[in-house]
Amino acid sequence: MALGLLELVSEHRCFGGWQRFYRHASTVIGLPMRFSVFIPAQAEEQRVPVLFFLAGLTCNEETFMVKANAQRFAAEHGLMLVAPDTSPRGADIAGEGDSWDFGTGAGFYLDATQAPWSARYRMESYITDELFRISTGTLPGDARRAGIFGHSMGGHGALVLAQRHRDTFRSVSAFAPIAAPSLCPWGKKALGGYLGPDQEGWAAYDASRLMAASHCPFPDGILVDQGLADGFLAEQLYPEVFEAACVQAQQPLTLRRHEGYDHGYYFIASFIQDHIAFHAERLKA
Amino acid sequence: MALGLLELVSEHRCFGGWQRFYRHASTVIGLPMRFSVFIPAQAEEQRVPVLFFLAGLTCNEETFMVKANAQRFAAEHGLMLVAPDTSPRGADIAGEGDSWDFGTGAGFYLDATQAPWSARYRMESYITDELFRISTGTLPGDARRAGIFGHSMGGHGALVLAQRHRDTFRSVSAFAPIAAPSLCPWGKKALGGYLGPDQEGWAAYDASRLMAASHCPFPDGILVDQGLADGFLAEQLYPEVFEAACVQAQQPLTLRRHEGYDHGYYFIASFIQDHIAFHAERLKA
Repeated sequence: MALGLLELVSEHRCFGGWQRFYRHASTVIGLPMRFSVFIPAQAEEQRVPVLFFLAGLTCNEETFMVKANAQRFAAEHGLMLVAPDTSPRGADIAGEGDSWDFGTGAGFYLDATQAPWSARYRMESYITDELFRISTGTLPGDARRAGIFGHSMGGHGALVLAQRHRDTFRSVSAFAPIAAPSLCPWGKKALGGYLGPDQEGWAAYDASRLMAASHCPFPDGILVDQGLADGFLAEQLYPEVFEAACVQAQQPLTLRRHEGYDHGYYFIASFIQDHIAFHAERLKA
Repeated sequence: MALGLLELVSEHRCFGGWQRFYRHASTVIGLPMRFSVFIPAQAEEQRVPVLFFLAGLTCNEETFMVKANAQRFAAEHGLMLVAPDTSPRGADIAGEGDSWDFGTGAGFYLDATQAPWSARYRMESYITDELFRISTGTLPGDARRAGIFGHSMGGHGALVLAQRHRDTFRSVSAFAPIAAPSLCPWGKKALGGYLGPDQEGWAAYDASRLMAASHCPFPDGILVDQGLADGFLAEQLYPEVFEAACVQAQQPLTLRRHEGYDHGYYFIASFIQDHIAFHAERLKA
């Protein structure tokens, strides 16, 4: 597989567009990476707004495309969807597969600074640089109209990458994000492992700490949905910390709390229509 | 697990209703069986129309609920959805797991007559008797307003069970059904294995042969969707045989052929809205 080439793993007609799965040799990560795209029919005529979805722990590039049914609304609005895998695969680092919440499947959408992770675990650069260029070069996404959203670990990724790459992403939303990773067990393990023990350094990858140090980075607002029967809510997610940071930053935030909904894709599917519409409105302007 | 009791395996709030997974000791099959249901919010007030979905080869009770996103439209129309597993599990019959298209995961929605399959492989009675009674007794389905649909092997199941149990099911549709199993490799293997070599006996479980011997069993019409890029179309599905049988039986049939669509759930998700609306219209009347 030559550098820079996209290998089409499979494709499926879907809502008048195409659901595609690609594999390519990532130069940023130095390993083969997989991602999925939904290309709406509108892309046959012109470049279209593009929306990146970042999935949660243990998921891969298929999860969102199979379970969320976002394609229906992406087709309606003429949005392209891109979903990367959740981590490098096959880095062959000792202990990489020992935990479900660190290493394989748990890249946390950052560039690791600690050896041995720092060589391969570079999901931030992979997404915001390499995958972004593929999506808006070879593929028909419009680089000037890109948004990002995600779920759980991917909600953390979306809220962080949107803030760290404000010129890249014009809109951001999240489902049940890990909103204050410096405070929760998942975040402490991941940020500690990938970035080292100095908690000051974690601020760069903590959505709430980034927000608290900003002034209204997204004037058109941020949308977050959270289920109140989410088993991870109390220990891992801390949406109220992000909410307080948004107040401090004068950042408009719509944080919707949904009685009875849990952490899974039945929750996501129930509210995906609103997220696609939220991004479409902001990316078409 | 006592006979007659439903064990709730998991539940998830979904589109204002509930997605539930159940396990129970089936008296018809003599083994534990699993099924899934979507119960719309409307069922809190009254019994609601119920729509059974039969999945294809290798699938289970989860596949449809995860991938088709039917719940969105079932919620809108106030329909309950029920999806059984595709075969008994754990019958412990020699050779049961040797093929992906016979035995485990491939029950073909019939009552086997051949030993050793006849003791456990009784999916027709399980669905039309036991699961139907659970769905319209313990669960809030309305026994007078039931429909059935399915995909591939489950499309065969839906078209056959609807015809064989005309008083039970008021509406029927299918995605890419095995429409003339007596003619195709999957069907010959399954009907031969479960029912024996006498091909006359297969007529009772062949949707096209049943239809050809009928007179307009469903005056309100039958809906079938078929992708034209379906890799199984030429060898296994034979929608044109079912179409001809419907002409012979004066049975109104809407057979939609979709350019570019394949055999998978991206195809099903693209057209599920029409199927739910089709059944809702017929079951609410």
